Amino acid sequence: MAVYTQLSAETLADLIAHYDVGELVSAKGIAEGVSNSNWLIETSGGEAGSRFILTMYERRIDVADLPFFLGLLDHLSAMDAPVPRTIHDRDGSAWREVAGKSVALIEFLPGVSVDRPTAAQAENIGAVLAHMHEAARNFPQQRSNDLGPDISASVLRACGVDALAQIDTKLPSAVAEAERIAGEWPGALPQSVIHADLFPDNVLMLGDQVSGLIDFYFACNDMMAYDLAVTHAAWSFAEDGRKYRPEIGQALMQGYQSVRVLSDAEHDALPLLAQGAAMRFVSSRAHDWTETPADALVTRKDPMDFMHRFHFYRDFGTEVFG
Amino acid sequence: MAVYTQLSAETLADLIAHYDVGELVSAKGIAEGVSNSNWLIETSGGEAGSRFILTMYERRIDVADLPFFLGLLDHLSAMDAPVPRTIHDRDGSAWREVAGKSVALIEFLPGVSVDRPTAAQAENIGAVLAHMHEAARNFPQQRSNDLGPDISASVLRACGVDALAQIDTKLPSAVAEAERIAGEWPGALPQSVIHADLFPDNVLMLGDQVSGLIDFYFACNDMMAYDLAVTHAAWSFAEDGRKYRPEIGQALMQGYQSVRVLSDAEHDALPLLAQGAAMRFVSSRAHDWTETPADALVTRKDPMDFMHRFHFYRDFGTEVFG
Repeated sequence: MAVYTQLSAETLADLIAHYDVGELVSAKGIAEGVSNSNWLIETSGGEAGSRFILTMYERRIDVADLPFFLGLLDHLSAMDAPVPRTIHDRDGSAWREVAGKSVALIEFLPGVSVDRPTAAQAENIGAVLAHMHEAARNFPQQRSNDLGPDISASVLRACGVDALAQIDTKLPSAVAEAERIAGEWPGALPQSVIHADLFPDNVLMLGDQVSGLIDFYFACNDMMAYDLAVTHAAWSFAEDGRKYRPEIGQALMQGYQSVRVLSDAEHDALPLLAQGAAMRFVSSRAHDWTETPADALVTRKDPMDFMHRFHFYRDFGTEVFG
Repeated sequence: MAVYTQLSAETLADLIAHYDVGELVSAKGIAEGVSNSNWLIETSGGEAGSRFILTMYERRIDVADLPFFLGLLDHLSAMDAPVPRTIHDRDGSAWREVAGKSVALIEFLPGVSVDRPTAAQAENIGAVLAHMHEAARNFPQQRSNDLGPDISASVLRACGVDALAQIDTKLPSAVAEAERIAGEWPGALPQSVIHADLFPDNVLMLGDQVSGLIDFYFACNDMMAYDLAVTHAAWSFAEDGRKYRPEIGQALMQGYQSVRVLSDAEHDALPLLAQGAAMRFVSSRAHDWTETPADALVTRKDPMDFMHRFHFYRDFGTEVFG
């Protein structure tokens, strides 16, 4: 949550001049994005509007993936999914280089990210997610999921049982559980491009309606039902993952299936997919925790928030998904 | 440069409902302000417009000063100075409490802060500063300058010669110089409310024209010529204060005097006032430097940037101000 690179007004004005959006009127660095720098940009206006998000790709993002990520935004936006489109420069390019880093100018979408969703909001996010899955099916580019269940298991193994136990005595059991999940992982469920990280932070809402899905930098080809499971895990819990909110989970499932009905095989796989979804965040958070000094200014996210969710899905998943 | 307090979308929507500005449409935490948290807010719109800066007063700002700071914005704005006005809530209050802290909703102004001003820009900032001084003369509230030359001297003494020498071997001499400046400080030059911190960061520009003066949280009653000296020191140097840019300093003076002609006494005092202005930033930066660990993520500002300026004004001030 920071602006990692300082760009002068002069540099920004030169950059904006490469786009058909008028002249730079305002630029504010915004406190969003953990691996990118972002600015809210206002211009005197052009065909593409007058407000934009300028994203600078700082780390974690492989520049080779930009055609996939930015092309996906354009594809989904053209299919009427509530996704910001990429503004192309006068030469047609979706990204440019500034200060040795890649930047993209992206449509600004209104809306705010809610902390504690209501059932009506959860139902709408479910429907929008299903619509996005349908819209993404004919996207021609491919990107594999580099955070699948086998990776969760190996990341946890690499953390080491001692380091996991230092975080929480209940955490070392995650290694064997992640290995079990990877071993049982289904292989043949319907795929599309999935968001894979659809936390409330990455959804903009106006009242009960989704106005934007953002931050597609984990998007990849994978099972649609897994994306639904990730979203279920990200939205349906309170109190740091200790308390399931059944009305939220049910509304999310209902909203999704109002657009796209799950097959029996997808439905039956949900308890395992949800365990895998929880374990994916247990593993990345455990890894970040062991890499981040306790006194760093960066807030460490507690892997136990998702270990609680994992236990819930393992013990009650069949009942929850009915 | 951060957002120190997290406010949920729900909390922000409740807050905005107290103002006649429509409903909350967007809220982005912005990376501005060293002692406040700030959000760029968009609403569905009302008489006061649809875009605002929400400022939360975190530290350094004494809440007892808010009537002065926020009343000043309204006063200057009504006098057509390019200053954001405060949006008052439905009860007429210029600030409210949220999460135990004071917040104010402030008009959004377009413009960007330049890094390396041109002479045309410096001339305009001079004229706008003089206009602001004239407009502020009949502002009825008072606030004394708590960062005058005697304070610079005592802050430097409190740092201690050893700590100053550790920063730079040329820094310990600042103690005696600051005491000399405080002893010679003029007492009877024309006063108004001054900005006292008019760095390029605190000026928004559209092309060559100033579109906004912002961040009045050091504003106080003091000599207008001292504010001009602060602005001269803040704008007219390159290379970390090592290189004076005569075309910028001259344009600034010319722009100021195109609106308000300095008296002989003000003019003659400028070399000393500029030394005092430089020393004010030497002292606060030296203090912050000794208080901030070298490995902190916060960027420490080097007090030597202003020690170079001080030397310049001491040795060449009479020539520079003519």
